[in-house]
Amino acid sequence: MTEIAEKIRNGVNTEQMFGTLDAIKAQPELARFQFRATNRWIGGAHNRSTIKGFWGAGQEDTSREQTFTVDAGEPAVLLGFDTGPNPAEHLLHALAACLTTSLVYVAAARGVRLTEVESTLEGDMDVRGCLGLDDDYRNGFERIRVSFKVSGDAPEEKLREVVARAQKRSAVYDMVTNGVPVELEVAPCSVS
Amino acid sequence: MTEIAEKIRNGVNTEQMFGTLDAIKAQPELARFQFRATNRWIGGAHNRSTIKGFWGAGQEDTSREQTFTVDAGEPAVLLGFDTGPNPAEHLLHALAACLTTSLVYVAAARGVRLTEVESTLEGDMDVRGCLGLDDDYRNGFERIRVSFKVSGDAPEEKLREVVARAQKRSAVYDMVTNGVPVELEVAPCSVS
Repeated sequence: MTEIAEKIRNGVNTEQMFGTLDAIKAQPELARFQFRATNRWIGGAHNRSTIKGFWGAGQEDTSREQTFTVDAGEPAVLLGFDTGPNPAEHLLHALAACLTTSLVYVAAARGVRLTEVESTLEGDMDVRGCLGLDDDYRNGFERIRVSFKVSGDAPEEKLREVVARAQKRSAVYDMVTNGVPVELEVAPCSVS
Repeated sequence: MTEIAEKIRNGVNTEQMFGTLDAIKAQPELARFQFRATNRWIGGAHNRSTIKGFWGAGQEDTSREQTFTVDAGEPAVLLGFDTGPNPAEHLLHALAACLTTSLVYVAAARGVRLTEVESTLEGDMDVRGCLGLDDDYRNGFERIRVSFKVSGDAPEEKLREVVARAQKRSAVYDMVTNGVPVELEVAPCSVS
């Protein structure tokens, strides 16, 4: 029982985690991943992404059995029918989720048992930017505030270190703070 | 019937759209929005965001009746149990959703009736970055490719213009390509 309890920490299999790190050190090409989403417009502000396949660890994944669907929408004041969180809210979720998972994995690796992780995120924007009314305002959030509550069986200083390390290594935190080059291509089809 | 058909284009109430633009021009403080998400760790790579309240158009919103929940996870190869798309996949969804909604709104404003909008997104990363194994690799995607299929009752050149305008004005496209300042604070609680 003790051995199992040691192996699984914060719901993470630390034996598998250290095995994965060793495997990538020995064979760095296993570190290449490609993630994907396909989105289809449904009507108005309502669209839906389907997410399943990805490339990673040297092969096209065959383990994921479920196709995930995620809906987006807009509230009434932004001309939608609340068919889902809006895209900017989805970005906040992506950021929160990545920081949280990074934090949980770092804690597992460092022997810290967590009991609670909660975060609230706020993003401020002036929609004169994205509406094209005033170029003094950017389209997206001017800033995002993230506030974490983290409880665990380690001194507060150690918990702060774990959060700092997660922030330093989170994939979405990197992308949201530093930006990513995006290539966009279009296949237009006139049906008139 | 014709009047209603003109007013609603691509599922967007264009009368409300132009009314919103006029209201913001007359009273620019209506343009301030704040969006939010609260995320809670469930176990391992599984966490869940709840999304409801926001500030916009001069007041705290009271129109949204539903609290949205969005789950995140990781596939087995990344130590999770597929409890949802992973955070990087959620970021792709946020980007796809925002470009699509921007495109649909721009088309509605410009009198273009769309019949189909579909996009596929791919993001490439080398996880040696986020795993802390090699600082030559960034934590997030090196690049994202977005491929749009857009059909509508306008010449191809016009459809291309609509996509270009959407790209220029999308909130999440701006954030993902240019980055956003993120402030992070932590309230650690030692329970040992």
